[in-house]
Amino acid sequence: MMSPLDSNIQIETLQADRFAPFGSVVEAGHAIAQASINDGRAVRFELPVHIDASMHGGQPRLSIFRAEPTPLPWRIASMERHPWGSQTFVPLAQLPYLVLVGLGHDAPSRSTLRCFLARPNQGVHYARGTWHHSLLALQAQSDFLVIDRAAEPQRSNCDECATLDWQLWINLLPDGSTP
Amino acid sequence: MMSPLDSNIQIETLQADRFAPFGSVVEAGHAIAQASINDGRAVRFELPVHIDASMHGGQPRLSIFRAEPTPLPWRIASMERHPWGSQTFVPLAQLPYLVLVGLGHDAPSRSTLRCFLARPNQGVHYARGTWHHSLLALQAQSDFLVIDRAAEPQRSNCDECATLDWQLWINLLPDGSTP
Repeated sequence: MMSPLDSNIQIETLQADRFAPFGSVVEAGHAIAQASINDGRAVRFELPVHIDASMHGGQPRLSIFRAEPTPLPWRIASMERHPWGSQTFVPLAQLPYLVLVGLGHDAPSRSTLRCFLARPNQGVHYARGTWHHSLLALQAQSDFLVIDRAAEPQRSNCDECATLDWQLWINLLPDGSTP
Repeated sequence: MMSPLDSNIQIETLQADRFAPFGSVVEAGHAIAQASINDGRAVRFELPVHIDASMHGGQPRLSIFRAEPTPLPWRIASMERHPWGSQTFVPLAQLPYLVLVGLGHDAPSRSTLRCFLARPNQGVHYARGTWHHSLLALQAQSDFLVIDRAAEPQRSNCDECATLDWQLWINLLPDGSTP
């Protein structure tokens, strides 16, 4: 339950410039190059994503993450980062979702937190080492295509940070509605 | 126009075992490993996809291909392959599409051709060097997320083969309907 000291994080729309400190937005409209291919029957939008998976002998890995919807209000209890690789999430469901990210050396700083509402046609690429919350699906169980670094045996590629002391919640959208 | 010598290729549903000679099917139901993650709030399905992009100093590249619908009947005029890298296509539209592949050393052999109808939740991974047709969207303009090998400057990673002499068309589904 929320106490008088608790607060709700502000939720903003996902835009490439706002997200730049954390990575990039995966969306045709944010391509770095565009080319007509297949004899004019298709267009290739090359995305500003550096699949950063080769550190310590790593390999890119393709997965589908099936995320349960987040019950709201949701207390932000932990954040994580992957020091050895980037992570790319592309929604396969036609549903919006939230992206919670932060900056910090040994831990995310509360003042740097940003919570973005992604449209169904927007994916996100977390640059290597970016602090982020786990997947925040909203309305229903949602599949995401994920490109990250295959885990090395015996070595961890995930730092976790407990954040309950922030007393920070995800609750309502800026217009007051539930996502 | 079709001549009396022309014929229509058989179209079959996309299944992992049928597609194995050409690559793999990108679908949660065909995962090679499954794990509960995010404190039980998500499941990771690890896919049988080897992102094969490092040959000759290559890097994995992420793109969106926006494909126009294929006008039917469609004469199979050419096939292509990428000798230096695999290619993965994951549909972002909730629409079916066709996948036309073949085997052969210097050119695809007509007798090895297979044409698969993919469901909207099925992607395909072409193993490096697999002969394939360009994207065959069906009902409407369709976006696909694509993971392939970034092209080297000055060097081609695409072999093309003209196939008009096959006099082979994509036309109707096995039940006689237009896809």
